[in-house]
Amino acid sequence: MNYLELSKEKKAQLLDEVNKEFNAFVAKGYKVDISRGKPCSEQLDIGMEMFKGIDKALESMPKNYRNYGMLSGIPEMQQLFADMLGLKPANIIVGGSSSLNLMYDTIQRALQFGVCGEKPWNDSKVKFICPIPGYDRHFAICEHFGIEMISVPMNEDGPIMDVVEKLVSLDDSIKGIWCVPKYSNPSGCVYSNEVVDRLAKMKTKAKDFRIFWDNAYVVHDLTDTPEKLANIMTVAEKYGNEDRIYEFASTSKVTLAGAGVACIGASEKNIKDILSHLTIETISYDKVNQYIHYLFLKDMNNIAAIMKKQREVIKPKFDKFINAFTEEFSTDSNIAKWTNPKGGYFITLDVYQGCAKRVYELCKEAGLTLTKAGAPFPYGRDDDDKTLRIAPTFTSTSDLDISIAILICCVKKACLEKLLED
Amino acid sequence: MNYLELSKEKKAQLLDEVNKEFNAFVAKGYKVDISRGKPCSEQLDIGMEMFKGIDKALESMPKNYRNYGMLSGIPEMQQLFADMLGLKPANIIVGGSSSLNLMYDTIQRALQFGVCGEKPWNDSKVKFICPIPGYDRHFAICEHFGIEMISVPMNEDGPIMDVVEKLVSLDDSIKGIWCVPKYSNPSGCVYSNEVVDRLAKMKTKAKDFRIFWDNAYVVHDLTDTPEKLANIMTVAEKYGNEDRIYEFASTSKVTLAGAGVACIGASEKNIKDILSHLTIETISYDKVNQYIHYLFLKDMNNIAAIMKKQREVIKPKFDKFINAFTEEFSTDSNIAKWTNPKGGYFITLDVYQGCAKRVYELCKEAGLTLTKAGAPFPYGRDDDDKTLRIAPTFTSTSDLDISIAILICCVKKACLEKLLED
Repeated sequence: MNYLELSKEKKAQLLDEVNKEFNAFVAKGYKVDISRGKPCSEQLDIGMEMFKGIDKALESMPKNYRNYGMLSGIPEMQQLFADMLGLKPANIIVGGSSSLNLMYDTIQRALQFGVCGEKPWNDSKVKFICPIPGYDRHFAICEHFGIEMISVPMNEDGPIMDVVEKLVSLDDSIKGIWCVPKYSNPSGCVYSNEVVDRLAKMKTKAKDFRIFWDNAYVVHDLTDTPEKLANIMTVAEKYGNEDRIYEFASTSKVTLAGAGVACIGASEKNIKDILSHLTIETISYDKVNQYIHYLFLKDMNNIAAIMKKQREVIKPKFDKFINAFTEEFSTDSNIAKWTNPKGGYFITLDVYQGCAKRVYELCKEAGLTLTKAGAPFPYGRDDDDKTLRIAPTFTSTSDLDISIAILICCVKKACLEKLLED
Repeated sequence: MNYLELSKEKKAQLLDEVNKEFNAFVAKGYKVDISRGKPCSEQLDIGMEMFKGIDKALESMPKNYRNYGMLSGIPEMQQLFADMLGLKPANIIVGGSSSLNLMYDTIQRALQFGVCGEKPWNDSKVKFICPIPGYDRHFAICEHFGIEMISVPMNEDGPIMDVVEKLVSLDDSIKGIWCVPKYSNPSGCVYSNEVVDRLAKMKTKAKDFRIFWDNAYVVHDLTDTPEKLANIMTVAEKYGNEDRIYEFASTSKVTLAGAGVACIGASEKNIKDILSHLTIETISYDKVNQYIHYLFLKDMNNIAAIMKKQREVIKPKFDKFINAFTEEFSTDSNIAKWTNPKGGYFITLDVYQGCAKRVYELCKEAGLTLTKAGAPFPYGRDDDDKTLRIAPTFTSTSDLDISIAILICCVKKACLEKLLED
């Protein structure tokens, strides 16, 4: 069925049917939520295995890990994150439980103190490049600090580099770019080798330009054949641009969300610069939690085994959405177009132009909470009003069926209404 | 013996003896450290009991504590910190492991965004009142952010309030004061009811003035008859000044240093203001660690029992210093004057004017690391060059004897040298 080609009568008839279905959902008073990229209970059970026999296991912990000190974190976790990101342990600071907090701090420091002895960013106007669609919490940090956001659309292999290169070459107030390079939030795309190379190589007018490389889903594959992401640090080193890169990662979706361990990875010069400020900010991060994580995670092979367990829980949830979308909308890409990510936490659903907000509102009325329409865009502004972010992981399997049914109904309703108006 | 009254010959003779002792220490190549207020291994053993049977115990944890969310922390720990500080649970935000980090963040936010809708502090010159001697890390935060520090001397019952009141009444660039009100770092004094009342009541020219009430040692008594500190929030409420207070506390020296739980306590209006920023900064703090702490700490009675165990480990260490000082210097308050704190982590040792730096250097040469002379003062400047901070807790009992011997020797050496110069 191609909705656009239907007669007005047929559209009205379909809308009538859809309205009945919609009213039935409203009457049921459902309360389901696919708005945030949160792990579900079964996933967290996997993380909780961390504490199995931990009192005994902690006897092996070096005594000084229980005390103040070691601002860069314990060497075991420095090594593990280094392996994860393809860096050297000395280029890792292991933080608290939140990589978002590390990113916020990094931007705050740059604004107030500048990076590596350069002028504070706040001395003049600051702009950031924001590939869209992107992560709403990244954009919220920019908005909070009054950083002007410049949207650059994403292709299937990353941001459109012709645009990025031009922007950064001309404007020295552009100090950074947000990147979720692997299984991007929310499109799921993986930056190609060419994009990574161009990001690492590009001439920036601002000499204190930084790439915020939020490698949130570095080990979060949904298939047995993980996508490969080029090591941006290695590439940047080749061009002498290693100081351009701030990498971030965490175990929030490997162990426990909000109770994991996060890190920042950077060049020797950047690490030294960060530590010079961090030593004022705190004495040390929670090294006991770091050690508990080390005991559980062990090495990259073991992490792969843990992530396989995670995948077994969440892959079917992604499939449910993909299959339902395929069944309902495969013949009509005008009404709905979706990504089929090979990792990460999100599906992007593009609906008929001008309908995303309406779908969000209708879903809300029918008891389904979606990520707010517009959220994946700076200032919450989706100019085409078409993009929705779906987070399949958190909701229980039974609620997922209801969520999908409501979502599909509301997509149809919003689009048919719109088509009948046009 | 009164050193000042000795003849020149006698001083020279004594110095000669002391020099021999000093050279013997240097020859031994000792390496001991009483510089930081760190718990010792036996104290941390007490904290590690937290993990005994924890895998089983964690089965009782509400499932959502494992996931993102609850930015203010888990209700159990809100309640516990509320009881500790005499606040309501709704007035508590339970943070990560570092109260210093919470203080840093609070100042950073005030500088950049202002407090409760007022203008950003950074819009003009910012000054802080720093009671001296005080905590070096507080002063380091001010220095880092370019906040001008105004020193106000401490009496035995807190900062000299006549001076504080006058300063804050005249200068609206004075935005805050640092207070460690109970067992102050490093003097060990406890603010009297009068001082608390005057701090809560005083007229401040800056309407966005804040008291940073770092209640680091709120349950850290060294005697069975704890000193009572007035509840500044209750007092401030009486004067309608409850928004003036930011309280901080942590379990760093109840459970584990650097792996405990910290909190901020404040009025409803302040909490709302803080959360409005914090929600951009992070998703949530580590609630699993919070719950592990709750299971171990339980309630104020149980905390008192834990602190009794802590006291049994560290009180003898304090006594060792006090006894040695009494034995060596009790007849001569010109050469050495020390505090005998009823709680907290430090002894303040005032030596003969102009000798503190020299004592520090001599100790270093003889293998003993002291907190840097001057550290308890803004910009590291002790105008009288007489105050040293002693941290008895960390060092093992055997090293303590050596530390004390070196310290006493170096105090004598520095003072005798100085007296012979004068």
